[in-house]
Formats: sequence, structure tokens, C-alpha cells
Amino acid sequence: MITKISHIGIAVKNLDDAIEMYKKLGLEIESIEEVDSQKVKIAFILIGDVRIELLAPTSDNSPIAKYIEKKGEGIQHLAFAVDDLPAELIKAEGNGLRLIDKVPRKGAHKADIAFLHPKSTKGVLVELCKENH
Amino acid sequence: MITKISHIGIAVKNLDDAIEMYKKLGLEIESIEEVDSQKVKIAFILIGDVRIELLAPTSDNSPIAKYIEKKGEGIQHLAFAVDDLPAELIKAEGNGLRLIDKVPRKGAHKADIAFLHPKSTKGVLVELCKENH
Repeated sequence: MITKISHIGIAVKNLDDAIEMYKKLGLEIESIEEVDSQKVKIAFILIGDVRIELLAPTSDNSPIAKYIEKKGEGIQHLAFAVDDLPAELIKAEGNGLRLIDKVPRKGAHKADIAFLHPKSTKGVLVELCKENH
Repeated sequence: MITKISHIGIAVKNLDDAIEMYKKLGLEIESIEEVDSQKVKIAFILIGDVRIELLAPTSDNSPIAKYIEKKGEGIQHLAFAVDDLPAELIKAEGNGLRLIDKVPRKGAHKADIAFLHPKSTKGVLVELCKENH
């Protein structure tokens, strides 16, 4: 089951510029992490028990770079924390939702993650994740 | 100051279809409300202390209808709850952020709300709101 909203992923061109903007809102950066497999550098902002992830590409062929090229900067995905990721993927697929990741993979913060295809989720790129903080 | 993430606003074409999809994820609808001034019907999903707002247009000239026409269905805005909305608007404008609403107006759930312009917030339509549950 979904236990909480884990994070909101926001695609940004330049991480420093984006951090500067969120500071203007009075928000503070919790940590920064680079995920080589996704060619992305992530700044985390913790608000209550929900995070904002600012996702900046580290290469032109990063998925986030391609997203920004196509759609511009903005909210890219919504992640729900679940208690049992493999079970939730089986349930989602059984309910007719389309999986991008049939098997969980490693994301930032050591989480196990899997994405659902936005064509099956009303335009929202949904991530299900098992947090392992 | 920002006290928490209030909600994530998601633009959907058809409210019943969207509700059906979120039920497939195991999520339940808390309530449904129509906001005449915005020509929108909203289904609320409460997860922890954060809500998802499914926003469906009730008219072709609803702002949400225009959004969907331009960008398609998907995450439309991100709302932060604040303790003092007028003070936060003054601070945001003083920090160079562009206000769509210079003065708070009434939103769903009796909240006072104001939007910041996405051109000044890295592509994210940011809402600041004073919840009045």
C-alpha cells in the first residue's frame, strides 16, 4: 500500500540557480547527491516528511535533459512511498497500469524505485518507491 | 514561513476517470468540491497531511481546460502551506519572485491562496496557501 507521498521531482536546468530560487521561498537544502546511472544531480529539500527533489542533468543525454528539451523546466514526477514495492508493481500491472520498470531499480537515497507510464496514469509520471533511509 | 506541502494539483480531463485510476493505486477520495469561480470540480485525496487535488474543468473556458489544451493532463501546480500569507507574498515579491495574485483570494477548502508566476519559479506554478480546515 501507499504509505505517504515520498517526493515531488522537479526538472531544472541549473541546480545552483534552482537552489537559489527555493531559498527565496525560505526553503533549505538538506543534501545533494549525484546519480551516475541517470546522469543527474539532485538537491533534496525536506518539508515535513515529504521531499522536493531538484533534478539537474549532468549530461546532454540525461533523461532529465531530454525532458527539459521537450517540456521545459517543471514538475516531472510524483513519487509515492510504498511498504512492499514488488507487491505494488504486481497489483498495479494487474489493475491495468503500465509499468516502465517491471523490476525495482536503485534510485537516490538508496531507495528501490519503479516508474509507471504516464499514458496509463492520466499524464502523471508516477514513481513507486520503497524508501530505505 | 512554509510549514508543509499543502497539496499537488493535477489537471485531469474527466474527474470520474481520474478517480478510477487513483483507486487502482489504492488511494481513496476524501471529498469532492466544485469551485465556481475557477470553473473546476476538485476531488481531494488525503495522504498523510498532504493532499492530491484532481482538477477537472466544468467549462471549456476554465483555466484548467486551457491548461490541458496547451500542456495535456498532468501535474499543474505545487502548493505550500504558509503561516502568514500576506507576509509571505511581500517577502516573495521582495525576493524578486513574480506574483500572479498580489492579494490572497479564496480557494477550495476555504483556504486563502495566491499563485506565483512560473516564469520566476523555474517553470513550477507555485501556490502559497493559508489552510483553514
